[in-house]
Amino acid sequence: MTEPFVIVGGDAAGLSAASKLKRENPDREVIVFEKGSWVSYAHCGMPYYVKGEVDSLTDLLSLSPDEIAEREIDLRRRHEVVAVDPAARTVTVESEAGRFEQPYGDLLIATGAHAVSAPLDGVYLDGVFTMHSMDAAGALRAYLTPPADTEAAHIDGEYVDRERVETYAAMDPPESAAIVGGGYVGVEMAEAFCAHDLDVHLFQRPDRLLSPFGDAAGDQVAETLREHDVTLHLATEVDELVGDGHVAGVATDDKQVDADLVLVGIGIQPNTELVGETAIELGESGAIATDDYGRTNVEDVYAAGDCAEMCHTVTGASDWVPLGLTANRAGRAIGQTIAGTPTLVGDIAGTAVVKAFDMECGRTGLLDHDRARAAGFDPVSETITASSRSGYYPGAAETTVTLTADWDTGRLLGGSIVGEDRAAIRIDTLATALDQDMTVSELERLDLAYAPPFSPVWDPVLVAAKVLNGTLADT
Amino acid sequence: MTEPFVIVGGDAAGLSAASKLKRENPDREVIVFEKGSWVSYAHCGMPYYVKGEVDSLTDLLSLSPDEIAEREIDLRRRHEVVAVDPAARTVTVESEAGRFEQPYGDLLIATGAHAVSAPLDGVYLDGVFTMHSMDAAGALRAYLTPPADTEAAHIDGEYVDRERVETYAAMDPPESAAIVGGGYVGVEMAEAFCAHDLDVHLFQRPDRLLSPFGDAAGDQVAETLREHDVTLHLATEVDELVGDGHVAGVATDDKQVDADLVLVGIGIQPNTELVGETAIELGESGAIATDDYGRTNVEDVYAAGDCAEMCHTVTGASDWVPLGLTANRAGRAIGQTIAGTPTLVGDIAGTAVVKAFDMECGRTGLLDHDRARAAGFDPVSETITASSRSGYYPGAAETTVTLTADWDTGRLLGGSIVGEDRAAIRIDTLATALDQDMTVSELERLDLAYAPPFSPVWDPVLVAAKVLNGTLADT
Repeated sequence: MTEPFVIVGGDAAGLSAASKLKRENPDREVIVFEKGSWVSYAHCGMPYYVKGEVDSLTDLLSLSPDEIAEREIDLRRRHEVVAVDPAARTVTVESEAGRFEQPYGDLLIATGAHAVSAPLDGVYLDGVFTMHSMDAAGALRAYLTPPADTEAAHIDGEYVDRERVETYAAMDPPESAAIVGGGYVGVEMAEAFCAHDLDVHLFQRPDRLLSPFGDAAGDQVAETLREHDVTLHLATEVDELVGDGHVAGVATDDKQVDADLVLVGIGIQPNTELVGETAIELGESGAIATDDYGRTNVEDVYAAGDCAEMCHTVTGASDWVPLGLTANRAGRAIGQTIAGTPTLVGDIAGTAVVKAFDMECGRTGLLDHDRARAAGFDPVSETITASSRSGYYPGAAETTVTLTADWDTGRLLGGSIVGEDRAAIRIDTLATALDQDMTVSELERLDLAYAPPFSPVWDPVLVAAKVLNGTLADT
Repeated sequence: MTEPFVIVGGDAAGLSAASKLKRENPDREVIVFEKGSWVSYAHCGMPYYVKGEVDSLTDLLSLSPDEIAEREIDLRRRHEVVAVDPAARTVTVESEAGRFEQPYGDLLIATGAHAVSAPLDGVYLDGVFTMHSMDAAGALRAYLTPPADTEAAHIDGEYVDRERVETYAAMDPPESAAIVGGGYVGVEMAEAFCAHDLDVHLFQRPDRLLSPFGDAAGDQVAETLREHDVTLHLATEVDELVGDGHVAGVATDDKQVDADLVLVGIGIQPNTELVGETAIELGESGAIATDDYGRTNVEDVYAAGDCAEMCHTVTGASDWVPLGLTANRAGRAIGQTIAGTPTLVGDIAGTAVVKAFDMECGRTGLLDHDRARAAGFDPVSETITASSRSGYYPGAAETTVTLTADWDTGRLLGGSIVGEDRAAIRIDTLATALDQDMTVSELERLDLAYAPPFSPVWDPVLVAAKVLNGTLADT
């Protein structure tokens, strides 16, 4: 008999793989070990739950417990896999019931990532949060909600850390918040805190917000946040979080800003402790190295999601860009491969979108010239601003597009788009172009959509391609 | 001395070519002969001018008279080119000042297209309009506006047919309108007439609206129009327009519907009378045949815009799809080619977008199975409906995607997207995929954008690709 398909981690990659294999091969046993209580939840939705636009924490679940059961996936919550023995083809599992060895036929490591908070002093004070777990989101929403308005439905779910939630629910709601980090978590949380009428301060070490989205996005999102009374401290390093028991503020080298609540959003790191002692190799990023089918270097051991590297569309090299679609796509492909149809996990272009209030940003590929040079390219960029619709049509908004290309070949390397009118979704055109190694000349000739309510004759993407192509031709 | 670059027709293709050549080569003489008075105007904006969302007719001009003068383009309005003599390298021009021969070094035929109205009896009655000229748009808006509200600014422009406008401005505004034709002009004009509180009837010979956009678009736009009290007469042929002097209604074989105003939107035809007697060849569609650089079969004679065929991205064959971007892009490329840098005009995918109130539709490539088979493909389609955003995020709307592919190769042939939340602009992803001959498998693996406000983890385009790819794999 074939040993089961064992999956370590019950979020996007793990449950996508489990679901796909059970659909293709219902007789194969699939066991998912999840260290915590929550499975299959939408990380990216948590800021909107905290904001109050999403009613319930359980609305963020992609699969309900019933759906998981219907798929006949053997899901074990609160089961931590603490060791892998590729020679014996077993994993060691710890749970309340004790420790045991589980044999596997195929193994998927889908352990995800964790929020970075160290080396900041004071991160363990009450009132300090990272935004990478459902329990944190639940506690934060409870804290933000006046005790009189706290309904069980809003801090719901049989899986939530109820003690933590109730502790915060009982506190007086915060009046001020400091956010450490101006990446997309920081920006989204600024919007969320504004919705609760907090006095919001955002600290960012670089001199712009949203560094991976390029200068225009950083500048325009800063302007938008300021319009909503967020105080920005750019080019400012936070030294420590201060307070006695509960956080009281944020200290930099020359000032201290009071805050009843601190959100630390300075990045995440892959969870790879499990493979540390094994022969399973990590890549340069520190995430698990995988091939085009999501296989690690060890036979029948796969890795996917936020703990794994994938091949980058533009550089062709292994890279670590932890995002939701990547995890789902790779998990699904691995499930199909194990079911007997070898399926590519696909490449990643680092396509990402974010909004701050009504300002939308999208980015894909390589924008940063240093990174592009490191990958062997000779980068050149142009930035244009064009209307999102025919200029005479109501609702048109300025849309700023930056494109980066390689001087020698004219190949598109990356792009970003910023604006208030359907700007973010336009990034998909560039993501598709990157996937196909298109040149800027080819991009310029694309037959994109035009009608006054949606786009000017020359879509902002085409305007940018024309300008960059002109620059490339002038050499 | 080089003879001038002569352009016949002063709209998108003609003025794009003129502008580009003057920018690249300021010393070259460029003469544009325009038969009428208006030049460089946005056809696609006219329905929104009639609706009242665009204030002024001159808002629809892409280039102001001053801009044209600044570019040192020798524009001659009310100059009709009545003959071309490729052997003598001259055109014959008629104007109020008389008839003359104009030598050319290069010639661009950019004569556009005209609205089809025959063979309908009654099309010459007062109150009957087609939507293919600025004068018609001006007269229609004047007719719809109560005399007391008619301001000169709204029927403005030194080029407008003032007599026609004033005639309609003086009439009592219509209370009912009949639209003949359910293509995008008909659908857009239904929205425009509703904004003026008319009782609107729309007659369409096929059993669905918007045939080129596929069944889902036709059905959902029909539902939307009915919600706005438009009476649809599908699968209904209009026999004649009835009336005595002014139109009074529309007659079919079994009924007559009263209407104070009739809009005929049953298609357009290329203006090719000029080349009829020459050696310049037409394609199968009846439009002028051109190569990848916009050249006709006659030396130094180019054609572009609504009067010309272009190469279709999917079939590789010459095709006639008159659209705004196509005209601008080809004109610009021809200007650059004539300036000394041979530049491809680019292919066409037939990418088009349209809206009816809040319902947006996009289409690109080959959707129709008969057309696909005629082009040598073995077509298969799937249609899915998915959410436009994460299901828990406010504003999510059902989005219906149809993809058509070739059974043998898995190559994407075409697609359509319908929905109320940023559905139309998503078609650009498919247009890009078609340009690159992508397979459905490749499409499924694209690293498209995901964030709850913009897209679910699997964008509707990816959901459709997954389903169609599953169908293709099941053979």
